[in-house]
Amino acid sequence: MNKELHTENYKAIDWVENKIIILDQTLLPNDEVYLTIDHWEEMIGAIKFLKVRGAPTLGVAGAYTIALAALEFMNMPYVNFADNLKNAAEKITNSRPTAVNLSWAIKRCMNSIDKTSNPKDIFMNLLIQAKMIQTENLTANIAIGKYGASLLSNQSRILTHCNAGALATAGFGTALGIIRSAWQQGKLTEVYSTETRPLFQGSRLTAWELQKSGIPVTTIIDNMAGVLMANKIISGVIVGADRIASNGDVANKIGTYTLAILAKEHSIPFYVAAPSSTIDFEISSGNEIIIEERDSAEVDWQINGRLSGSLLKTNINNQDTSILNYAFDVTPHQYINAIITEKGIMYPKYSESLERLAK
Amino acid sequence: MNKELHTENYKAIDWVENKIIILDQTLLPNDEVYLTIDHWEEMIGAIKFLKVRGAPTLGVAGAYTIALAALEFMNMPYVNFADNLKNAAEKITNSRPTAVNLSWAIKRCMNSIDKTSNPKDIFMNLLIQAKMIQTENLTANIAIGKYGASLLSNQSRILTHCNAGALATAGFGTALGIIRSAWQQGKLTEVYSTETRPLFQGSRLTAWELQKSGIPVTTIIDNMAGVLMANKIISGVIVGADRIASNGDVANKIGTYTLAILAKEHSIPFYVAAPSSTIDFEISSGNEIIIEERDSAEVDWQINGRLSGSLLKTNINNQDTSILNYAFDVTPHQYINAIITEKGIMYPKYSESLERLAK
Repeated sequence: MNKELHTENYKAIDWVENKIIILDQTLLPNDEVYLTIDHWEEMIGAIKFLKVRGAPTLGVAGAYTIALAALEFMNMPYVNFADNLKNAAEKITNSRPTAVNLSWAIKRCMNSIDKTSNPKDIFMNLLIQAKMIQTENLTANIAIGKYGASLLSNQSRILTHCNAGALATAGFGTALGIIRSAWQQGKLTEVYSTETRPLFQGSRLTAWELQKSGIPVTTIIDNMAGVLMANKIISGVIVGADRIASNGDVANKIGTYTLAILAKEHSIPFYVAAPSSTIDFEISSGNEIIIEERDSAEVDWQINGRLSGSLLKTNINNQDTSILNYAFDVTPHQYINAIITEKGIMYPKYSESLERLAK
Repeated sequence: MNKELHTENYKAIDWVENKIIILDQTLLPNDEVYLTIDHWEEMIGAIKFLKVRGAPTLGVAGAYTIALAALEFMNMPYVNFADNLKNAAEKITNSRPTAVNLSWAIKRCMNSIDKTSNPKDIFMNLLIQAKMIQTENLTANIAIGKYGASLLSNQSRILTHCNAGALATAGFGTALGIIRSAWQQGKLTEVYSTETRPLFQGSRLTAWELQKSGIPVTTIIDNMAGVLMANKIISGVIVGADRIASNGDVANKIGTYTLAILAKEHSIPFYVAAPSSTIDFEISSGNEIIIEERDSAEVDWQINGRLSGSLLKTNINNQDTSILNYAFDVTPHQYINAIITEKGIMYPKYSESLERLAK
């Protein structure tokens, strides 16, 4: 039975009339606010503060940001233009360290202009590259969705972590792309979405996306994944990726590694969904991936609970507590049953199967 | 090198001038508020809303509550007194289903009065039992601390989950009792405390307790336990228990099972610390333990973050999302390296080692 899939009527990022439009993901799901950004340095702020996030979205964002920078520098003499552009490219690349897509997109854009010295041509080339990156990513995600859904059996109950959806990509999503395809094919019973501490991308973004698509979703705290697996409620785990080493080690949202170990212990398949641009062929293993450590204030919180009927407000920063806040972890390749790319399903041994994608 | 241990100057619960005094744990760490409770049904509310919590504390709370009920019924004719007391005993027992200590304490108290039919004597007997339960638990925890610390080597870096401290017991704590003993013996380098979603007992209560005792503590989100183990930062895991089946299966705060699997995968010892009253000899395995499912509003939250410098407010209940909220999970005995009780360290095979404690 094929199921209806409501069309997404939102985009994480777009280029409109020489400005960048982003959907502010820090305000979802309560408010759907689009921001118009006309300065490249403002985009760097938006990237750092996670207003735009998700590895493939960061690729698109990086590309549009370097195009915006070129537009801002366009009236400078070429030498100054080139210097400033190079500086902007570096700053964009370094705005977030773990996802490879940022540096991949900037490299691709900058390589596309090395035969030109006319600022206007350079801007146009950069903009074309950015639009290509965006379009290619959407196409890739639809292919990932199709390949991934072929791995799932009927009545699948899929656990996903963080948000690897339309918001994290140029549309459709990677992990959520597979979930959308499986739903359309009538293979999916339910999605279980971890809330994803500390920033709740699961309960804020993934639940929002799946509801918009009419796909049944149950939010769980991260701590509940184990017992759901033990109770045979989860038939498979699908997550996205921020960077994949050439041996198949995967950096992704903190907690992914834990889910991979839980899946192995319960003999549940663990899949990673990502476009091939997420593979970093320059590193041989996950040990070389830089893990972003973010401000411990992110772990801070206030609860407005209904405990005892009264207002419960808590702020751990009132305590002199040390807090560690790694944004990502690395899942070693041996825990991963398959890596699903737009070029097909990659199986172990990944050092060989991924190598073929480099060509 | 022996380290200084600051004395705890707080008590989760006490009996003062025929009233129950509790420290409202829902308001910690921001506010240290003691509530005076003079009606047994008010205590049931406090138990349900987690103003008092922690398995051994619940034992003490149950015992004081039945004593308070007897005090309230004291002027009734004996038949009415007995009926009302029986009804109160049932309601107290059922106020929270998973921790065995509540039903264990009520049974012990009610068994202590079966030869008496004078309400005043009954009240006095119940109060004496309650005070004995409280005192015995404190003594048990000091013994647990001593036995548990003997298992740890120097420079231990211990991960704990939820709060199994002085607040969860009549004082000193079970898991935190071991941590306190190890600290006094100079064996402990650092405690890693999970924040423990959904109600943050780790970052609210455990961090608060350890700071009061001057023991170094780092709070992590639950999702970070895996990567800390992979990076060899954790040398052992110690948790409390809400109910232990006679085969050694352990019900404890949701997420405990995940930590046990992670510990096994990284060859890190996983210890459970609990007084022998936590063992339920009437059940043969964890399958028989009732897991409390709590209101999904507990998973709700508001974040007041510094993302984008603006106020970020999110309320998943604005979404039509299904939320599952199990309060506990069951860790099968094969993941547990030892169960530390006041009567000594129990090793597998638990069906035999625990059996000896029943005698």
